[in-house]
Amino acid sequence: MPLSPSSKALIPFVSVENMMRLVHHIGMEQMLVELTDAIEADFRRWPCFDKTPRVASHSREGVIELMPTSDGEIYGFKYVNGHPKNMADGLQTVTAFGLLASVSTGYPVLLTEMTLLTALRTAATSAMAARHLAPKGAETMAMIGNGAQAEFQALAMKAVLGIKEVRLYDIDPRATEKTAANLKGSALTVTPCKSAQAAIEGAGIVTTCTADKQYATILTDNMIGAGVHINAIGGDCPGKTELHRDILLRAETFVEYPPQTRIEGEIQQMDLNYPVTELWKVIVGEAEGRRDARQITLFDSVGFAIEDFSALRYVRGKLESSNFYQEIDIIADPDDPRDLFGMLQRARA
Amino acid sequence: MPLSPSSKALIPFVSVENMMRLVHHIGMEQMLVELTDAIEADFRRWPCFDKTPRVASHSREGVIELMPTSDGEIYGFKYVNGHPKNMADGLQTVTAFGLLASVSTGYPVLLTEMTLLTALRTAATSAMAARHLAPKGAETMAMIGNGAQAEFQALAMKAVLGIKEVRLYDIDPRATEKTAANLKGSALTVTPCKSAQAAIEGAGIVTTCTADKQYATILTDNMIGAGVHINAIGGDCPGKTELHRDILLRAETFVEYPPQTRIEGEIQQMDLNYPVTELWKVIVGEAEGRRDARQITLFDSVGFAIEDFSALRYVRGKLESSNFYQEIDIIADPDDPRDLFGMLQRARA
Repeated sequence: MPLSPSSKALIPFVSVENMMRLVHHIGMEQMLVELTDAIEADFRRWPCFDKTPRVASHSREGVIELMPTSDGEIYGFKYVNGHPKNMADGLQTVTAFGLLASVSTGYPVLLTEMTLLTALRTAATSAMAARHLAPKGAETMAMIGNGAQAEFQALAMKAVLGIKEVRLYDIDPRATEKTAANLKGSALTVTPCKSAQAAIEGAGIVTTCTADKQYATILTDNMIGAGVHINAIGGDCPGKTELHRDILLRAETFVEYPPQTRIEGEIQQMDLNYPVTELWKVIVGEAEGRRDARQITLFDSVGFAIEDFSALRYVRGKLESSNFYQEIDIIADPDDPRDLFGMLQRARA
Repeated sequence: MPLSPSSKALIPFVSVENMMRLVHHIGMEQMLVELTDAIEADFRRWPCFDKTPRVASHSREGVIELMPTSDGEIYGFKYVNGHPKNMADGLQTVTAFGLLASVSTGYPVLLTEMTLLTALRTAATSAMAARHLAPKGAETMAMIGNGAQAEFQALAMKAVLGIKEVRLYDIDPRATEKTAANLKGSALTVTPCKSAQAAIEGAGIVTTCTADKQYATILTDNMIGAGVHINAIGGDCPGKTELHRDILLRAETFVEYPPQTRIEGEIQQMDLNYPVTELWKVIVGEAEGRRDARQITLFDSVGFAIEDFSALRYVRGKLESSNFYQEIDIIADPDDPRDLFGMLQRARA
């Protein structure tokens, strides 16, 4: 059978449908907790990774990015786009897929959808940062921007930190309605608000996740009181920020990978030597996290390749004992590795 | 049916099996001719492309690379590895897959195997360069290195340039036997040789395609006579070359994208300002190609993202009227683009 591929030719592919099955099989909140721990485990071995700012291809409408990394044994990358104008056309702002490969052979070992997985890993990363930076005992989060990421963010903060109330605001009230409806039955108290200012009232954690590809001021300085942890995840590409720079001046800023964040994060508003703390150093105890109850902490999150790597490895581990994947024939694998042409020639028969 | 994906969620995937069907449907030599023209058409609009050296992750055993480019309407990238030691383990040295996406939405529009397609596009690129640089009327090619690429190279030179004889040499005689056997019935005269020196006798085109990840000297200066066109495709990553530098000093060197070739090609042996001519400029008439019958021309080929882009677009065009693909559900596409969570939640039902 010249056309039937060898086992080396096949790699597991997790479709969107199978990813949804996997999430429900594990349980959404359980998966968010496990992803948070998986990402934190990789942040603890940060120096092991081959790190590079993502490779972005910008256009007027958006950006397409490749985010590779490797720990020396496994290589991973994510393809992800960001097109704020997509929503008006009924399309996702962000879609993604990802791949793992063996460093020693270069052969892919997993291909998976990552639109859902990115929402989950971004929420898990936010929860991981908040676990180290948020004020102790914070029970309320304000969620400014109620788009595709909002529910994942709320549930991760609930599952990992024990948040009890989420206060929602979006410039589009339908987005807030959608988020509130989806969070029914989550055991969170959900409070839709009429302004960002109202949403922030009493919140120990303020998450901003808006999508405009421009410099915006979602939060102004007077809105942020002492002791708050800001989880800024929407300012994630050049020319796109959410916070007034005066907030940054009052806060201690924590980042994933400074060379990328200085280009893409809130701190693109600041000098190139603006002081930041790398989050992994806080996690391993090499740097101080939250100093006191009155400090404003800011996680200037842009999303880094290691978080995707952790999520991809997590999914791969879950596949070992499940059938939530199909096999696709993506690697040409002739019997004699030098005989690619012969394989092709014999397929004609 | 909450689990059945929308049409926006599905993209065409060309498996290895379907790529083989497509090649035989078109005809190998016809496809090599068409690919050569497709690549040349994109070289003619070289300034339109977003160009960047490929993003390489090196390890002791090999390299994994991402090769993105865009013409402003379509974005493409290839994943490709290079692991010379794989062959001893029964694995391919090079495997690849690639993707096209819409620049305006960021949505993928094609996923395909590219191990076979890379062999075809590399051969087509060699033929394109030789069409502009080889001595007129060359009927004989020496092929040094008889691995997975060899037959593709020979057939492209036959189909595009009218080469009539291929003289083969490899340090492993079994590789030469394999290549000679595969080229039976191609109407090429195939002459196995016992040394590189013997293979080169009378050849107007000398192609080197060996795989060692090291500085090697496949060709020495005394082996290369006047008027020869050298098509050097094996020296394609840092620390990997095939030619003695004295040959370079006697030849005019033509390259794809200088910032990448200076890192990866034969000219990594030379100063960073070593003079080279960009091949696209020869094709559009902005630079001189072969000056006279005695000149030695060297195409220092490392493979560039635009060649993969051309090959991907070519394959996509062929799918419009064929069934050589399957659809895979890789894009999460909720009815309301902001309601990713709701789509996931409803899938539980």
